[in-house]
Amino acid sequence: MKMSQLFTKTLREAPADEVAKNAQLLSRAGYIYKEMAGVYTYLPLGKRVLDNVIQIIREEMDSVGGQELSLTALQSKDVWEASGRWNEEVIDVWFKTKLANGSELGLAPTHEEPLTRVMKAYISSYKDLPVYPYQFQIKFRNELRSKSGLMRGREFWMKDLYSFSKNVDDHNRFYEQITEAYHRVYDRLGLGDITYKTFASGGSFSKYSHEFQTVSEVGEDIIYVHEQKRLAINEEVYTDEVLADLGVTREELVEKKAVEVGNIFTLGTKFSDALDLTYTTEDGRREKVFMGSYGIGPSRLVGLIAELFADDKGLVWPDNIAPFRVHLVQIGDVAGQAQMLYDALVAKGVEVLWDDRDLRPGEKFADADLIGIPHRVVVSEKHIKNNQFEYKLRQGVEAELLTHDELFAKL
Amino acid sequence: MKMSQLFTKTLREAPADEVAKNAQLLSRAGYIYKEMAGVYTYLPLGKRVLDNVIQIIREEMDSVGGQELSLTALQSKDVWEASGRWNEEVIDVWFKTKLANGSELGLAPTHEEPLTRVMKAYISSYKDLPVYPYQFQIKFRNELRSKSGLMRGREFWMKDLYSFSKNVDDHNRFYEQITEAYHRVYDRLGLGDITYKTFASGGSFSKYSHEFQTVSEVGEDIIYVHEQKRLAINEEVYTDEVLADLGVTREELVEKKAVEVGNIFTLGTKFSDALDLTYTTEDGRREKVFMGSYGIGPSRLVGLIAELFADDKGLVWPDNIAPFRVHLVQIGDVAGQAQMLYDALVAKGVEVLWDDRDLRPGEKFADADLIGIPHRVVVSEKHIKNNQFEYKLRQGVEAELLTHDELFAKL
Repeated sequence: MKMSQLFTKTLREAPADEVAKNAQLLSRAGYIYKEMAGVYTYLPLGKRVLDNVIQIIREEMDSVGGQELSLTALQSKDVWEASGRWNEEVIDVWFKTKLANGSELGLAPTHEEPLTRVMKAYISSYKDLPVYPYQFQIKFRNELRSKSGLMRGREFWMKDLYSFSKNVDDHNRFYEQITEAYHRVYDRLGLGDITYKTFASGGSFSKYSHEFQTVSEVGEDIIYVHEQKRLAINEEVYTDEVLADLGVTREELVEKKAVEVGNIFTLGTKFSDALDLTYTTEDGRREKVFMGSYGIGPSRLVGLIAELFADDKGLVWPDNIAPFRVHLVQIGDVAGQAQMLYDALVAKGVEVLWDDRDLRPGEKFADADLIGIPHRVVVSEKHIKNNQFEYKLRQGVEAELLTHDELFAKL
Repeated sequence: MKMSQLFTKTLREAPADEVAKNAQLLSRAGYIYKEMAGVYTYLPLGKRVLDNVIQIIREEMDSVGGQELSLTALQSKDVWEASGRWNEEVIDVWFKTKLANGSELGLAPTHEEPLTRVMKAYISSYKDLPVYPYQFQIKFRNELRSKSGLMRGREFWMKDLYSFSKNVDDHNRFYEQITEAYHRVYDRLGLGDITYKTFASGGSFSKYSHEFQTVSEVGEDIIYVHEQKRLAINEEVYTDEVLADLGVTREELVEKKAVEVGNIFTLGTKFSDALDLTYTTEDGRREKVFMGSYGIGPSRLVGLIAELFADDKGLVWPDNIAPFRVHLVQIGDVAGQAQMLYDALVAKGVEVLWDDRDLRPGEKFADADLIGIPHRVVVSEKHIKNNQFEYKLRQGVEAELLTHDELFAKL
């Protein structure tokens, strides 16, 4: 895409009341627009990054048998009353509204109840289990404060998968499979090395739940990391008993700030009890379906990756989720040569943002740094006459001069 | 995908209070689940059809220079007060809610105001124009009644594109381009022959707006069709003056019921006046940006196509948007041969729903008819020993026996 046609521009200033670094950079670079605290429009560049994150998660959910669907934002009261969660003392972040006839509705902060009700239409026998429906959906949470940019939204994207299994053994097998799928997601997002499966408080049906925590100075959580075992413990369960369970000692653990980038939870029969979701076993008994829930926030991940990898010049995207792979900068009277390179890259399937604007080189380089596309290629009058291109990684220090063939070997 | 793994099943009954044929069939076949009137969950089959419709529209919007973004559902009051549309006498389908601090919010029924505000950050000069941002977004409309299934939702998918142009001439040129893009969308959806560009009431900035109306007995609109000129007139502007404008006579027009499947509208400076969206012209004057809006409802299209093409046995999808292209039905002890055919089709890039379930042939055929995938291939004990497959189009009458090569030539 030509930058002269992209409708966004880089801005000198982020919104005055924006305190989160991720939102400041993403606003200035033209990825997002702040509608209100915790509520952001995704501009074309931001939409591309979000879609790339979502596609990675989708592929990994499909790889463990996930089936994608799309539940609704508007929620009728009855199904939430059945579980006791319509009550605002139980869920304190409800947005509620009303139908024209006066009936109360909620905006879904999560989807256990409505999905459990859907499954009542489709689960009746052991032959119907297990199943793993999931979705990417906008969630609404009426947070009192929302100052962390994309990292804590009032309206944000969530991937939520729910497992419906015959019994705890089948559930546990899937729980291990999806744990591996989550690790693959973070690996592909470039967060694998600093993301830990973290033991957190469980519920009635399991002693622990598990979070995936990415170590970061902006994290709101405190975790204790066991580097060698690649696990961590959330401070909420950092007790002698838990240490003993996991066979680790305080001396081996390092306290770190971290951001929760996923969580997996054994729901057991909490919701199948509340909504009477049962199946007939192979020997004819009626049993409650055993459930789990598995969340990842794609919009939080966009914010976290923006914040984690940025330097003092701007954003730095990993290849896998960058809005474009190559930032082609045209310097001087070289439109024809730039067009040839652009066409050749696009023909090879490489996504290119082409800075064809009539601006000073310094402005173009500053914009390229702020936008953070991983590979920068400069076509300049000075070097093109020797058939050379200037190539630089966004996070690299030195540019190198490459021939056409050397450049294509890199990309 | 194997049907034994798909979590939905066909149902004998639609929800008891469901009166719309599209929603009855889509519910029974496992495409949608009714959360409440006008609010539907898209189950895996329905999500696939919706995504296919969206992708066709996306390609055509991109072809006229559209840039995709994603605005927010939550709306702050100020931007809508600026245009006068916060008032419920002006927009009577608002859902409203409140932030924890008591501030009123709305759920977007459309997005002219917030997008106009976004563009104030990016449009300052004639060089920044024209631009054509668009999105696929869930819209919320608090309709008093909602009995038409997917065809009139309270929560539904909309493609809305907005044009920002320097002046009315540039606007008019784009208006013609997007008119052609809309026709291409309906052609690709199989609705081209029965969809008419329809003259409807305009506003302060143009005498007419235009709707795209698809002729159907379930339509809520009355239009007057001029078959030869491929145009129509909405009854709201069916006057002698309009007939004279268009150079047609009452005798040439035929009254028909129709469903509005798109509309395009010259907004002029209504919103750029309200929100002060201006640009500097080439000779240094400040001018208001000239706007247009262009809507298509993908979820309504799913409902309409379901309703229009269905027969007494169930749904009939056009190839372009079907959830799968081939319904592979395995009859008898032929799992190995079915697997070979499935693998060969998938390797060729054909999407296949494989009925591997242990059911009577009659049940399988009835399900295939209800689900409505366009190409049915039967692998049966009777014919596979002669290396033959039974092939039938969903809307065809006769099945034919084909060899492997003949079958692949068809698909």
